[in-house]
Amino acid sequence: MPAVTFTVLKRDRATGARLGRLKTPHGTIETPVFMPVGTQATVKTMTPEEVAGVGAQIILANTYHLYLRPGADIIREAGGLHNFMHWEKPILTDSGGFQIFSLADLREISDAGVTFRSHLDGSTHFMGPVESMAVQESLGSDIAMAFDECVAYPASREEVEAGVERTSRWAEICLEVHRREDQAVFGIIQGGVIPELRRRSAREITALDFPGYGIGGLSVGEPKELMYSILEDLQGYLPENKPRYLMGVGSPDCLIEGVKRGVDMFDCVLPTRIARNGTVMTTYGKLVVRNAAYARDFRPLDPECDCYTCRHYSRAYIRHLLKADEILGLRLTTIHNLYFLLKLMHRIRQAIANNDLEAFEADFYAKYNSGKI
Amino acid sequence: MPAVTFTVLKRDRATGARLGRLKTPHGTIETPVFMPVGTQATVKTMTPEEVAGVGAQIILANTYHLYLRPGADIIREAGGLHNFMHWEKPILTDSGGFQIFSLADLREISDAGVTFRSHLDGSTHFMGPVESMAVQESLGSDIAMAFDECVAYPASREEVEAGVERTSRWAEICLEVHRREDQAVFGIIQGGVIPELRRRSAREITALDFPGYGIGGLSVGEPKELMYSILEDLQGYLPENKPRYLMGVGSPDCLIEGVKRGVDMFDCVLPTRIARNGTVMTTYGKLVVRNAAYARDFRPLDPECDCYTCRHYSRAYIRHLLKADEILGLRLTTIHNLYFLLKLMHRIRQAIANNDLEAFEADFYAKYNSGKI
Repeated sequence: MPAVTFTVLKRDRATGARLGRLKTPHGTIETPVFMPVGTQATVKTMTPEEVAGVGAQIILANTYHLYLRPGADIIREAGGLHNFMHWEKPILTDSGGFQIFSLADLREISDAGVTFRSHLDGSTHFMGPVESMAVQESLGSDIAMAFDECVAYPASREEVEAGVERTSRWAEICLEVHRREDQAVFGIIQGGVIPELRRRSAREITALDFPGYGIGGLSVGEPKELMYSILEDLQGYLPENKPRYLMGVGSPDCLIEGVKRGVDMFDCVLPTRIARNGTVMTTYGKLVVRNAAYARDFRPLDPECDCYTCRHYSRAYIRHLLKADEILGLRLTTIHNLYFLLKLMHRIRQAIANNDLEAFEADFYAKYNSGKI
Repeated sequence: MPAVTFTVLKRDRATGARLGRLKTPHGTIETPVFMPVGTQATVKTMTPEEVAGVGAQIILANTYHLYLRPGADIIREAGGLHNFMHWEKPILTDSGGFQIFSLADLREISDAGVTFRSHLDGSTHFMGPVESMAVQESLGSDIAMAFDECVAYPASREEVEAGVERTSRWAEICLEVHRREDQAVFGIIQGGVIPELRRRSAREITALDFPGYGIGGLSVGEPKELMYSILEDLQGYLPENKPRYLMGVGSPDCLIEGVKRGVDMFDCVLPTRIARNGTVMTTYGKLVVRNAAYARDFRPLDPECDCYTCRHYSRAYIRHLLKADEILGLRLTTIHNLYFLLKLMHRIRQAIANNDLEAFEADFYAKYNSGKI
């Protein structure tokens, strides 16, 4: 019995969108799904009950951060990440690769892995596919990601190609060393924005027959249209019966466009990060609630939203909290943004079920881009 | 019909402790009561539902802070502080006096009030009894406090005496100008640590027949024993049928000693402030959960506590959150500390009802001072 199983329940008639169900050791996930990010074993500002309450089915935690602090051994001793953080639903952990390449200093890459210095205290560490699998097994996530090399954008063809080759070699090692039967490992497809290299990576990684596939190295600075065309092209090279996870993507338009191109899973810090900066997503577009314009605005953030925040608090109050550096302000905007995105995903699933995705999309954009906030 | 009414339900046989009931426009409060502090229209880190959930019957908000930000007019336009912050239970507002004397700069005191500069932006403001009443009427608290002068500790006899005289004059003005019938005004007794001046202040303020009395200017640096002896002495000078509120006091020992000397109401930032610094109060004394000693300690903060935090999280996890600057850490310690203090008050009320306060006290201290954490 594999750790996770995936079933495509329905395909949208007009687009590549899929409605699916992903079974994991800690519960079943309806896809397409957005995964809130709990980098340091907490979705910033929220309790697990609140995260579930806004509609999250699965969260993502970051292997790099948890390896450095508090350390994988402490989480293993706590009985794994679910126990440690009091979250009973599924967890996906990333491989650590992306953070090592983007956050850590003074790295040296070899075929065995990466030597890097902690962004916290400058201490030196080594992580490769073997170490990443060991850490993720200690964390005990439902889905672990294979250790990959994510090249920067822009990068030369040679760099992208080297990244693809290394990612394929590391993917094999991950499968060889991985032991936990209650944890799935997903492969990651790299290849930058070069269609030929994307196809090569897809061929090599899917040949290893992972139970799911991450699409890495996108949404790293390239134009959105380029990302969409890569996704479109990739569709033909990914097995129909395995979940496809577009890593690090989470704006409403990218979620919709990703779903239309066959993506089943997403994660992103965007909704929680912009919330803490005082920006919220509403039916009628983004609203910077910190702005002075809202000092006497006693309407909810989004008049069409029924989240906890919008049911009980005004823009004026939330602005006051943010201006006064009060933590409740960060909590209220975070709750709203996650609820907004997770409800969007719920409505997308309904639209696929009703063969109605294109009409839903037109309606969503008409309001979201209206600026009538 | 007065805005608030107070009934002494029972007196403890062996001490001066009183069990009482305080009715206010937003609900009835069982006394002795501890009031969590919501300085800026929020009990730091918590939602109103959480504040009620840990057992709070009434909260305190700070007139000085809210006058400066967001401004009393915005809160009045929002329909008052209860509406603005989504708290349906009683609220007490302080007069602003204490904060003006402790936080603001460059103040000039006259018989009409105080000119001060905002600690936020240096802007110049004036507040006296007339202004304080107007602001508190805009806030719409259930209980407003008369504008008083709180002298520093130590202070000369002349300074303390001048403070007593001014506080009495201002108290009269407060009663004259106050209009709201759904809001009570409590007088404040000053007099530093000079028994004769305390008695004079008590005589002058109680002569004005307020529905309740604050005891101000204590817990400002003087030895605890001095505070206790002032409280003991004051008992004979305060009317039996009015609530007595010891301002700014909130450590477990001071709560117990205050109750034994006839105090009915308390407030303090202590439990919430030390929580955010990583210190929690437990049955067996204080615990600095930030300490490295707790990195692998998978027990709850207090093994005898059944608060949300202690039911679901370990010391190791909470320490991790605090070290990683995660807001959830501040939330969990705050919830625990408030629950601990509010449960202590609940047990004190039960002990008074059972004529059992001294036995309860002995038992509490035996554990609290044991250091067996």
